Amino acid sequence: MFDFEEKIKDSFARQKFMNFIGGKVVKVEDGFCEIHLPFKEELTQQHGFFHAGVISTLADNAAGYAAFSKMDANSSILTVEFKLNLMSPGDGEMLIAKAKVLKSGKTLTICRADVFVIKNGKEKLCAAAQSTLIQLHNQDDN
Amino acid sequence: MFDFEEKIKDSFARQKFMNFIGGKVVKVEDGFCEIHLPFKEELTQQHGFFHAGVISTLADNAAGYAAFSKMDANSSILTVEFKLNLMSPGDGEMLIAKAKVLKSGKTLTICRADVFVIKNGKEKLCAAAQSTLIQLHNQDDN
Amino acid sequence: MFDFEEKIKDSFARQKFMNFIGGKVVKVEDGFCEIHLPFKEELTQQHGFFHAGVISTLADNAAGYAAFSKMDANSSILTVEFKLNLMSPGDGEMLIAKAKVLKSGKTLTICRADVFVIKNGKEKLCAAAQSTLIQLHNQDDN
Amino acid sequence: MFDFEEKIKDSFARQKFMNFIGGKVVKVEDGFCEIHLPFKEELTQQHGFFHAGVISTLADNAAGYAAFSKMDANSSILTVEFKLNLMSPGDGEMLIAKAKVLKSGKTLTICRADVFVIKNGKEKLCAAAQSTLIQLHNQDDN
Repeated sequence: MFDFEEKIKDSFARQKFMNFIGGKVVKVEDGFCEIHLPFKEELTQQHGFFHAGVISTLADNAAGYAAFSKMDANSSILTVEFKLNLMSPGDGEMLIAKAKVLKSGKTLTICRADVFVIKNGKEKLCAAAQSTLIQLHNQDDN
Repeated sequence: MFDFEEKIKDSFARQKFMNFIGGKVVKVEDGFCEIHLPFKEELTQQHGFFHAGVISTLADNAAGYAAFSKMDANSSILTVEFKLNLMSPGDGEMLIAKAKVLKSGKTLTICRADVFVIKNGKEKLCAAAQSTLIQLHNQDDN
Repeated sequence: MFDFEEKIKDSFARQKFMNFIGGKVVKVEDGFCEIHLPFKEELTQQHGFFHAGVISTLADNAAGYAAFSKMDANSSILTVEFKLNLMSPGDGEMLIAKAKVLKSGKTLTICRADVFVIKNGKEKLCAAAQSTLIQLHNQDDN
Repeated sequence: MFDFEEKIKDSFARQKFMNFIGGKVVKVEDGFCEIHLPFKEELTQQHGFFHAGVISTLADNAAGYAAFSKMDANSSILTVEFKLNLMSPGDGEMLIAKAKVLKSGKTLTICRADVFVIKNGKEKLCAAAQSTLIQLHNQDDN
């Protein structure tokens, strides 16, 4: 297995949008990825909670890097599709997305991701996603 | 029917995240909403294209306001879930999301949204979504 | 283009489950497929309406054959995933699924399908799906 | 809590389609349901494996009854929508669907379901679903 942790952190750093909103990859393992995002006012919807678009960005990114950890060193990855249920308002000081690979195939990888919101130190399930990703062989991610 | 156009533009203006990324509601009709988002570097993924999180934000928001146009004046709306297929890279100078209501019920509303990317004046289908939204009766959106 | 109509009808005939429930392909065009299914009591849920499983079978099959019409003659097709919203009870004497291709790529094809229920000759939208399918090159469907 | 096990087995018995294909509820717990379906030729697609429509029927039903176990005694339940990834061919002598509730609210319940195929006694993940269900209060399921 290649050093996926290095590759994932490199790729993440090149995503200007993740930097813009303030997301951080905090853990990558074989088939798993966790991303954190602290609250800031610019990320809110009309009630002052994390915007659904921010929540879906995190779920999608965590799934993408969980899948990426299973792929060949010289390949790139794209999200084919995802489905997200929003279950509780994103009311808190931090979002945490945790994604794991359900099935990793030659071409397609299926992941599930959960997004939690942390309020006063308590973690609450805020959203759940299921995603399909495709590996583009021999296409460097740069 | 209440003046949904005013209500939607008000609600949109209170979404700090939409202002942060630069989205604009350009059209609202009964059961339809269109949102535009010009390119800026902060919205990109690792290849310099619009980030999938931005694309999903637009699709979700357009669906939300299309559904909102069908709802009671003194109600609020939440996305229950959505599913998004990403079909082409978000490579261009503008994103346009167009959503329409498929079925509007007392509690739930189902929408479809298409997101197009404009490059050199040509429009290309970039993503397609299908969403479920819930109306919260007697809960002002403010 | 190969004679997809013949290939689709052949493939459909080999699906024992479609024969068991009584579905019939009534139209295939380039990027489009329509399947009909008459009511019978064996297809019902607890309230005597068409079962959601039957509705999803029809939506998935119509999408599959719409996608198949765009593919190479000597390839096979598999559903990667689909998402289905059930909007009205399947209360009527016939189900009609109509699917069309949104985007047909080298590997993946994206479709939308609508399922209508016919009651006393009136057509009502009963369910809506969005699907992803994969083409297996050089794998005959037999 | 009401006796959900009895209520679920009653409801299941009234689903003629589940009887037609041969599904059996084998376990119901608080927020969990497991359904089994033995192979028969009438349930196959063109390659002789369990049809995707059968797999989705099982996933949807298991989710429905897992959600039902959380609901009021005098309420009914409907699937709002579900999304299903098909990950491996349904090649085996039995399908097993296991569903659990992720979030149970006053109106909506979110579930995940996994469908396994058993071949020569070995269990393999065949499909994964994520569903949204709605509780209809004061509407008996009969």
